Amino acid sequence: MLKRYFPILEWAPKYSSRTFVNDLTVAAIVTIMLIPQSLAYALVAGLPPEIGLYASMAPLVLYAVFGTSRALAVGPVAVASLMTAAAAETLASQGTPEYLGAAVALAMVSGLMLIAMGLLRLGFLANFLSHPVISGFIMASGLQIAAGQLAPALGIHAKGETFFELVIALGRNARSINIYTAAIGIASLIFLFWVRSKLKPLARRFGISEKAADLLAKVGPVAAIAATTAIVWGFGLSSRGVSIVGTVPKGLPKLALPPLDLHLWTKILVPALLISIVGYVESISVALTLAAKKRQRVDPDQELIALGAANIGAAVSGGFPVTGGFARSVVNYEAGAETPAAGAFTAAGIALATMFLTPLLYFLPNATLAATIVVAVLSLVDPKALKRVFVYSKADFAAMVTTILATLAEGVEIGLIAGVALAVFLHLYSTSKPHVAVVGQIPGTATFRNIKRHTAVTTPEILSLRVDESLYFPNARFLEDLINGSVAANPEIRHVILECPAVNTIDASALESLEAINTRLGGITFHLSEVKGPIMDRLKRSHFLNELTGGVHLRHYDAVASINSDLVVRTLNAERVEEPVA
Amino acid sequence: MLKRYFPILEWAPKYSSRTFVNDLTVAAIVTIMLIPQSLAYALVAGLPPEIGLYASMAPLVLYAVFGTSRALAVGPVAVASLMTAAAAETLASQGTPEYLGAAVALAMVSGLMLIAMGLLRLGFLANFLSHPVISGFIMASGLQIAAGQLAPALGIHAKGETFFELVIALGRNARSINIYTAAIGIASLIFLFWVRSKLKPLARRFGISEKAADLLAKVGPVAAIAATTAIVWGFGLSSRGVSIVGTVPKGLPKLALPPLDLHLWTKILVPALLISIVGYVESISVALTLAAKKRQRVDPDQELIALGAANIGAAVSGGFPVTGGFARSVVNYEAGAETPAAGAFTAAGIALATMFLTPLLYFLPNATLAATIVVAVLSLVDPKALKRVFVYSKADFAAMVTTILATLAEGVEIGLIAGVALAVFLHLYSTSKPHVAVVGQIPGTATFRNIKRHTAVTTPEILSLRVDESLYFPNARFLEDLINGSVAANPEIRHVILECPAVNTIDASALESLEAINTRLGGITFHLSEVKGPIMDRLKRSHFLNELTGGVHLRHYDAVASINSDLVVRTLNAERVEEPVA
Repeated sequence: MLKRYFPILEWAPKYSSRTFVNDLTVAAIVTIMLIPQSLAYALVAGLPPEIGLYASMAPLVLYAVFGTSRALAVGPVAVASLMTAAAAETLASQGTPEYLGAAVALAMVSGLMLIAMGLLRLGFLANFLSHPVISGFIMASGLQIAAGQLAPALGIHAKGETFFELVIALGRNARSINIYTAAIGIASLIFLFWVRSKLKPLARRFGISEKAADLLAKVGPVAAIAATTAIVWGFGLSSRGVSIVGTVPKGLPKLALPPLDLHLWTKILVPALLISIVGYVESISVALTLAAKKRQRVDPDQELIALGAANIGAAVSGGFPVTGGFARSVVNYEAGAETPAAGAFTAAGIALATMFLTPLLYFLPNATLAATIVVAVLSLVDPKALKRVFVYSKADFAAMVTTILATLAEGVEIGLIAGVALAVFLHLYSTSKPHVAVVGQIPGTATFRNIKRHTAVTTPEILSLRVDESLYFPNARFLEDLINGSVAANPEIRHVILECPAVNTIDASALESLEAINTRLGGITFHLSEVKGPIMDRLKRSHFLNELTGGVHLRHYDAVASINSDLVVRTLNAERVEEPVA
Repeated sequence: MLKRYFPILEWAPKYSSRTFVNDLTVAAIVTIMLIPQSLAYALVAGLPPEIGLYASMAPLVLYAVFGTSRALAVGPVAVASLMTAAAAETLASQGTPEYLGAAVALAMVSGLMLIAMGLLRLGFLANFLSHPVISGFIMASGLQIAAGQLAPALGIHAKGETFFELVIALGRNARSINIYTAAIGIASLIFLFWVRSKLKPLARRFGISEKAADLLAKVGPVAAIAATTAIVWGFGLSSRGVSIVGTVPKGLPKLALPPLDLHLWTKILVPALLISIVGYVESISVALTLAAKKRQRVDPDQELIALGAANIGAAVSGGFPVTGGFARSVVNYEAGAETPAAGAFTAAGIALATMFLTPLLYFLPNATLAATIVVAVLSLVDPKALKRVFVYSKADFAAMVTTILATLAEGVEIGLIAGVALAVFLHLYSTSKPHVAVVGQIPGTATFRNIKRHTAVTTPEILSLRVDESLYFPNARFLEDLINGSVAANPEIRHVILECPAVNTIDASALESLEAINTRLGGITFHLSEVKGPIMDRLKRSHFLNELTGGVHLRHYDAVASINSDLVVRTLNAERVEEPVA
C-alpha cells in the first residue's frame, strides 16, 4: 500500500553504488542540456530566466519520490509555458510581481488538482482530449511559440496574444529590426537546424557511437549559447541594442507556500485545469513510450499524484507549471538513466549552477535563447499528421483543424475547449444515425446476415433489423422513425425483430423509445434477439419486458423460429452454402 | 417535391364538405377551450393577455400549410412561456415595450432557427436532450410555473426568478394575502382539481359517452372563468383588491415584421435555441404519438419547418414563441380533427373572439387564470418517472436530478444546459471503461465465449480479449493500459487477439492506441478478429494493417487456428457441449 503511493520504496532499497555512479554521469549530461531549456521556457512563459531554473529543481526531486517512470524528466516545457503565459496575461502585465504570483498560483492549483485526480482515480478525464485534438493543439501551440520568439530572435519589437496577432505585428514592425540581434538570431537558427539534421550523421562518419552522436546533437544549444555569449561580450554588442539576459539572481530560491489567495485561485481554475490535463497527457504518453521499450510498468493514477507533487514543488520554490517533457525525458533515457535518482541528481546539478554559474549568463543574448526555442518547437509541427487523419476520418480531421484554427486565432484556452466540444459533438452525431441492416437466414445455417451483402432468406411478414450501435439518447428517436417508417412502407409486416449483437447499452431514453415503438406497433408483435447479459439484467428492472408484445430470444434464429418454424427449419436443412462473415 | 415542403397540397385537393363540417365542429369546441389557455400562458410569459390570443391565430394557419401531423395544435404552451419570461426578464422589465419586443424577437429568431434546422436536416440536434433530461426539465418547469402562479392565485405580492426564490418570497410575504382573491383562487383550484379527477367518471355514470365526458372535463376552466367573472362583477370585488384582467384591446393584431435589431438578436441566440429545441421535442413527441394511433406518417424534418413558420407567424402578428402543445393537441384529436384545416378554423374562432368578446373578459380575476395554470402544470410533475429512471439507470437518474435541481435553483437555461452537459459526460464516462471478456473456445464448436460465464478452452500463450464497446477517444488509453497490464502480468503470452464483434467504430485516437499497442508488444504478435466491414474499409486507408505484427481474421476461430491449429481443431471435434449464448 505504502509502496503504491511512494514508488521510491520500490527501488531505493535496491540502490547500488554501480547505479549511483551511472545516475550521476547521466545527471551531469542532462544538467548541461537542461540549463538553456529552462531559461528559454521561462521566456516563453513571460517570466525572468531564473524562474525556469527554480522550476527544474524541486519538481525533479519530488517526482523521484512519487513517480513510477524510470526515465521521465519533469520541468518547464513549451506548451505548458505558453499556457501559463496566456493565463497570467489576463491577470497582470509581464514583469510585475502579480504576473509572477499568477504563474506560481497556476503551478499550485494545477498541482492540487492533479493530486486530487490521482487520489479519486479521475485519470480518465485526460481521455476527453482525443488524439487529433491534442495533436492539433500542440501543433498550433508550436506555431504560436515560434511566432512569439521570432521577435526577440530578430530584434523586432512585436507583441500579440495569438498567432495571427503576432504574425501581423511582426510584419508591421519589421522595420524596427536590430541587425546585430538579427545576425546573432539567424546565425543561431542556422547552426541549430544544422546540428539537428546534419551533426549526427557527420559524427557517425567519424566513428562516434550512435548513442554518443545522439547526445552530441543535443548539446548544440549549449555550444550556440557559449559562442554567442562570448561574441556579445567580446564586441560589446549589448551597447548596440542587443538584448541580453543580464543579472540573474544568484542562489537557491526561498521555499515558501504561495499565498492562499482564493480570489486569484478561483479566476485561474479553468486554465489550471487545462494545463493539468494537457500536461498529464504529454507526460503519461512519454512515460508509457519509454517504459514499453524496457518492459517497465507505469501506473497512470500514481503518475497524476507524482505530477501533482512536482507542480506543488515548483510552486513552493517560486517556479511555474511543469510536466514530463518529451525532449528532456528522451535525453535522460538516452543518457542511460536507470532510476528516478538520476532526476534528483540533475536537480542538484542545476542547484549548483544556480548558485555559482549565473554570472556567466550575463552577456547571453536573448536572441540565442529565442532561436533555441524556435528550433525546438518547430519539431512539434507535423503536417503529415494532418494528412494521415484526413485520410482516416473526416470527423477527426474536422476536430483537428478546428482546434488548430481556433488556437491560432483565439488562443490556447478557447482553441482547446472548441476542439474538445467539437470532437464530442461529432462523436454523438456519428452515433445518432447508426448503421442498420435488414438480415435474412443464410441457407443451410442458423446464421442471419445483411441481405444486401449475402444471399439470405427472408419472409415478408417478418422484419428482421440489426442495429450496429448502442441504443442511447442521440439515436433513440432515430430508431422510432426507422421502425415506424419501415412498417408504414410494408403493409405485409406482422412481426418486427430487433437483433442486438452490437448493442452495448440501452439507456433510459432508448428504453422509452422501445416502449413507444412497442405501443405504437399496435397489432404487430415486437421482439428482441441476441441481447447481451448486462443489458438483459437491466431490462428486467423495467416494465418493458412485461409490456413487450413479442419475446426476447437468445439467438436471432430462435426469434424467427418462434414465429415461423417451418420456413427456418427448411432453410436450416437446405443445402449448406458457404457461410460468409460480415 | 413541392408536396414535401407544402403538405397542404397533399390533403387540400381531397378536402370534402363532410370533412369541412367535421373540422368546423372541432374548431368550435377547441376555440372555447383555447381562449382561457391562451390568456393564462401569456401571464406565465409575463405578457398582457391579448398577446396570448395573438399567438393562437397566425401560427395555427401556417401550421395547417406546412405541418405533417393531422391533429397537432400549435400555440402558447407552459414551458415555452416560462422560458420566454426567463429570457425576456434579463433584457427588460415586465410591462415595458422592450419586454414585449424581446418576446416577439424570441419568436422570430426561434422561427428562423427552426426553419434553418429543417432545411439543413438538423433535427438530430433535438436528440441531445435525453429523455431523463427533458422530463426532469419539464417537471422542474412545472413546479416553477406553479410556484409563480400561487402568488396571483392567493393575492400575495411575491416575485422571484427561480423556484426557490419564489417559494421563499411566498413565505415571507404571506401576510400580504388578499382574502377575496384567495377565496376565488382556492375555490377555483378545488373546482378544477375536482373537474380533472372526478367529473369524467360522474358524467360516464350519467350515460355520457367516453369521448364527450373527456371533452366535458376539459371545459372546466371555461366554467370557472365564467362563474368567477360573474362573481367579481356582481359583488364589485375589483374595488376590494381583487386583481382583474381589465381592458383587453379589441380587434386583430396588426401584421408587421419585427424590427431587425441585430444587437438584440445576438443577445437572445442561446435562449432562442433552447426554446426551439425544447419546443420541437415537445411538439414532435405529441405529433408522433397522435399519428401512431391512426397509422399516419409524420416527417420530423418537415415538422421543424412547420414549427418555424408557426413561430414566424407568431412574431409578425405580435405574439410570442409557440409550439405544438400536448393538452391542446389532445383536445383537437379527441374532438375529432381530421385535417390541419381544423386548426385554421380554430384560428378564425379565436379571431372572432378577439374582435367581439374581449369586453366580457374585463372582470375576469387573474386569480382564476392563475388557478387554471397551477392545475394544468401540476400534471407535468410525475414523481413516478424519477423512481422508474432510478431503478433502471443511475447515470440517467443523476442527469435527471441534476436537471431538476439546477432548474429549480438557477432557472431554465442553466438547468437545461447543466442537464445536457452531465448526460453527455456520463455517457462518455460509461464508455471509457468498457466491458472486456477473456474468451475461450466452447468444446465441440467454433464458438468463443467469456471464460467466466462458460466452460471454455484456452491456451496460455494466446490472450483472447473481446471488447464490448466501440473503440474511440474516451476509451483509447484504457485499451493500452489493459493490454500492457495483461501482458506484463502473464509472461507466457506470445499472441494477443482482440475480438471486435461489438466494435462499431474505431476513431483516429483508437487507431493511434492500436498502433502504440502493436509497437509496444515487441515480440508478441497482435491480431484482430471479427472486424466489421465498414471498420475494415477504413483501416485499409491507414498504415496500421501493414505494421500489424499479426493478422486480421474474419472469425475469432480462424485467428486462433492460424496460431495453434492443433488445439482448436481438437476442441472443435471434441464432444459437443450445449452452446450457450451470452
